[in-house]
Amino acid sequence: MNREELIYQIKTKRSFLCIGLDTDINRIPDYLLDCEDPIFEFNKQIIDSTKDLCVAYKPNIAFYESLGVKGWVSLQKTLDYIPNDIFTIADAKRGDIGNTSKMYAKTFLENFDFDAVTVNPYMGSDSVIPFLKFKNRWVVLLALTSNQGGLDFQNIEDVNGVQLFKNVINISSQWGDNKNTMYVVGATRSEQLSEIRNIIPDHFLLVPGVGVQGGNLKDVAKHGMNNDCGILVNSSRGIIYAGNGEGFADSSRLEAKRLQQEMERLLLQRNI
Amino acid sequence: MNREELIYQIKTKRSFLCIGLDTDINRIPDYLLDCEDPIFEFNKQIIDSTKDLCVAYKPNIAFYESLGVKGWVSLQKTLDYIPNDIFTIADAKRGDIGNTSKMYAKTFLENFDFDAVTVNPYMGSDSVIPFLKFKNRWVVLLALTSNQGGLDFQNIEDVNGVQLFKNVINISSQWGDNKNTMYVVGATRSEQLSEIRNIIPDHFLLVPGVGVQGGNLKDVAKHGMNNDCGILVNSSRGIIYAGNGEGFADSSRLEAKRLQQEMERLLLQRNI
Repeated sequence: MNREELIYQIKTKRSFLCIGLDTDINRIPDYLLDCEDPIFEFNKQIIDSTKDLCVAYKPNIAFYESLGVKGWVSLQKTLDYIPNDIFTIADAKRGDIGNTSKMYAKTFLENFDFDAVTVNPYMGSDSVIPFLKFKNRWVVLLALTSNQGGLDFQNIEDVNGVQLFKNVINISSQWGDNKNTMYVVGATRSEQLSEIRNIIPDHFLLVPGVGVQGGNLKDVAKHGMNNDCGILVNSSRGIIYAGNGEGFADSSRLEAKRLQQEMERLLLQRNI
Repeated sequence: MNREELIYQIKTKRSFLCIGLDTDINRIPDYLLDCEDPIFEFNKQIIDSTKDLCVAYKPNIAFYESLGVKGWVSLQKTLDYIPNDIFTIADAKRGDIGNTSKMYAKTFLENFDFDAVTVNPYMGSDSVIPFLKFKNRWVVLLALTSNQGGLDFQNIEDVNGVQLFKNVINISSQWGDNKNTMYVVGATRSEQLSEIRNIIPDHFLLVPGVGVQGGNLKDVAKHGMNNDCGILVNSSRGIIYAGNGEGFADSSRLEAKRLQQEMERLLLQRNI
């Protein structure tokens, strides 16, 4: 999916919600465990009940990989089930030397055919650039993450007082452009979103950490939104585990609807 | 495998060679493509011909993952085939927020039962610590990588003139100890190995980049070795693609033997 289509989806659906499909076999309702493929069955119900409210789904690959071969089958089935007009992000946080990154890129952007894949910037240009070679596909590069440990290194200032996450953005934004590169900026760091917007006014930001991790949607919109919206806000556990038992997907819909309605208000305030 | 056993293997085999099983379906001899599982068949022949010369095997997960379900089966079969007295490293370069890193850790250190997994430090403490919770299992943390892009961020100096890779080592070496943490330091950066040895005299270092990437074994040993040897030097493409056609594994053996003999001399020079 290209940039224009993504913006069109946001404006049409009145939503910039991304739902994280971090589907944990130990947390899904018990009754699903009798299904042939419980993970896919769970995802299918979540997708059915939320697809009109979100513009993106983001399966975290760790949860599928941990189930071995079965998990990869569930992931492929999930991806095939997601409607084509919804943006898909493989939250894989990969990155390696050039010839190896090329393999990872092929896996997620060609074989699985995700629209985007999250990539870790630590190994630099030749670990990221192979992911930028696919038409209408995206790299979502980690910049400032939402977890506590995110500050261990990402906040370290260089001799000019520039923090590492800003160096990552400054340098890596030269490798691609706002049509193939997004950045992860945690919602728990919303005060720094404005600073990031000064560096990259037009890039999309993927903002995790709203919900269970404590980030605030209004603050994220205030500091991160641009005239194209420019943000995708992710909620994973807060939506997919909103309920339990047979009505779990209805509870997920309620929580997704609550976020979408708040997003609609925030878009209106910006005349989008 | 614990630290003592690893050192014992190095002393017994007179080798600190790690062989990278970066097995690419497009590079293995054509005649193997008729086998039921060409990747495993290739690895099996490499293992048969080199297992007395190396102390570790390191499959790079990207190459298996790119083949989908089949690739994961080949990986499991390869791991099962590696003798128990050889150290195994999943070169996966994973890392995510705490609850997700826990899934990755479980995948590689428990389900696959690798001895070690490579981890990317960018997301900090809570992305790494879940990998340190497994008895006699290891985290191999990226510090200074061998690729060109490695210098984009890893070399950035903080306000005190300390480079990022040293900050990574300084801080992360507090999370575990020399019995469960190793560091990746590229052979192409051997001049910096001495500086790293000053910070962590006792930790094992995993040194890729000898061979195709241009690193020099003698320099690595000079700057990186300690009294326990303390280094594992990896060669991937230089060994596994040393030959072609039906005799490919013999060529791999010759190259592995050449490196092992040089390692034996370097160990003797240090009275190990």
